[in-house]
Amino acid sequence: MVVLYHCVSARSFRPLWMLEELGAPYELRVLPFPPRVHARSYLDINPLGTIPYLVDGDTRMTESAAICQYLAERFDPQNQRGLAVRPHEPGFGAWLNGLHQGEGTLTFPQTLVLRYGRFEPDERKQPQVAEDYTRWFLARLRWTEALLQDHEFLSAGRFTAADISVGYALMLAGQLGLQGQLPDAVSAYWARLQQRDGYRRALAAQREAALAQGVSPHDASID
Amino acid sequence: MVVLYHCVSARSFRPLWMLEELGAPYELRVLPFPPRVHARSYLDINPLGTIPYLVDGDTRMTESAAICQYLAERFDPQNQRGLAVRPHEPGFGAWLNGLHQGEGTLTFPQTLVLRYGRFEPDERKQPQVAEDYTRWFLARLRWTEALLQDHEFLSAGRFTAADISVGYALMLAGQLGLQGQLPDAVSAYWARLQQRDGYRRALAAQREAALAQGVSPHDASID
Repeated sequence: MVVLYHCVSARSFRPLWMLEELGAPYELRVLPFPPRVHARSYLDINPLGTIPYLVDGDTRMTESAAICQYLAERFDPQNQRGLAVRPHEPGFGAWLNGLHQGEGTLTFPQTLVLRYGRFEPDERKQPQVAEDYTRWFLARLRWTEALLQDHEFLSAGRFTAADISVGYALMLAGQLGLQGQLPDAVSAYWARLQQRDGYRRALAAQREAALAQGVSPHDASID
Repeated sequence: MVVLYHCVSARSFRPLWMLEELGAPYELRVLPFPPRVHARSYLDINPLGTIPYLVDGDTRMTESAAICQYLAERFDPQNQRGLAVRPHEPGFGAWLNGLHQGEGTLTFPQTLVLRYGRFEPDERKQPQVAEDYTRWFLARLRWTEALLQDHEFLSAGRFTAADISVGYALMLAGQLGLQGQLPDAVSAYWARLQQRDGYRRALAAQREAALAQGVSPHDASID
């Protein structure tokens, strides 16, 4: 059984959403945020103390978008659900690009806004950095916006793991109060993604697991 | 012909190294750093103004580690050089993790050190942020260090694109003067990677192309 370590609405939401889209069996272990501080024993499991952490047999993974690609192969090797894009398909490059861009280019800058705008104690807050990386994030969405002018999804004309990767960055933007600054095409795209059964099942699954495991079911980054 | 837009020793060094490991034909276009400032017309090619940018037929990509995975399929679909790891191999999860970790977890934090420690004008420099993300980067190397205790490479017991992804983060650490702070196992690993013919050919190729195209052949992030 695949085990996914998770904090509510943290990056680990990507693999959780992916598991729900795949209809795969999994065990969800919810930790208070940040686990390095509130669940010290987690460091014995994942020495980085970061979320997500996936355990599947001998496989151990820490990178949320990489885990989405892994899970596609693990649970749907024939790609019947189409969440992966195959090398022979024209959208293969766009798919890989979206998988990586969602995290490295669209999520990391937002973690700086969170850190220096909210999490750090007042004397360490850095409004300039929070502002710099808000603008940085919004500027990088031009790529996503251009793709969505002609397409409903990021690659191959269908919903894939790349949409989960970028979709999570938009979910985080909502938690940061940036939804009003998203380009219209990106806003509309994110509204479409939120209609998916898989997304809704993932939201319900994290809420249920958090309550059952004695963790607050509210967004980790806001609590 | 694949076209790769590149700045000397920037992230685009990853796909350049990959192309050399694959022995693939390509055209390298070298731009002064940062192109947004010194090569404004580049924005007509890549609206983000970021490096790398890969053009291959109708495919357009901006994410350096994603491009490495793409190139493996594009030029070695049977994986004869072993730079990819296939889903049926035990190292598949570790390979994907390394590909993503090299950029999102090990390179992005260093760009903050560069930005707020060097590039910004003095009144916008933020020594605290540069220090925070130096420590953040070094702490995340614990994962790499642990993997290298028992293994020569990051996945599947051989050199792969994951080593290029993480290797570039170590190259950047050298440019930042952090080599003395790398864990011993990581230092030794990076020394091994630099012995590779593919790495050396990539260094020579960027130097030759920079000189031929009238761009300084010195590391972009240091010049």
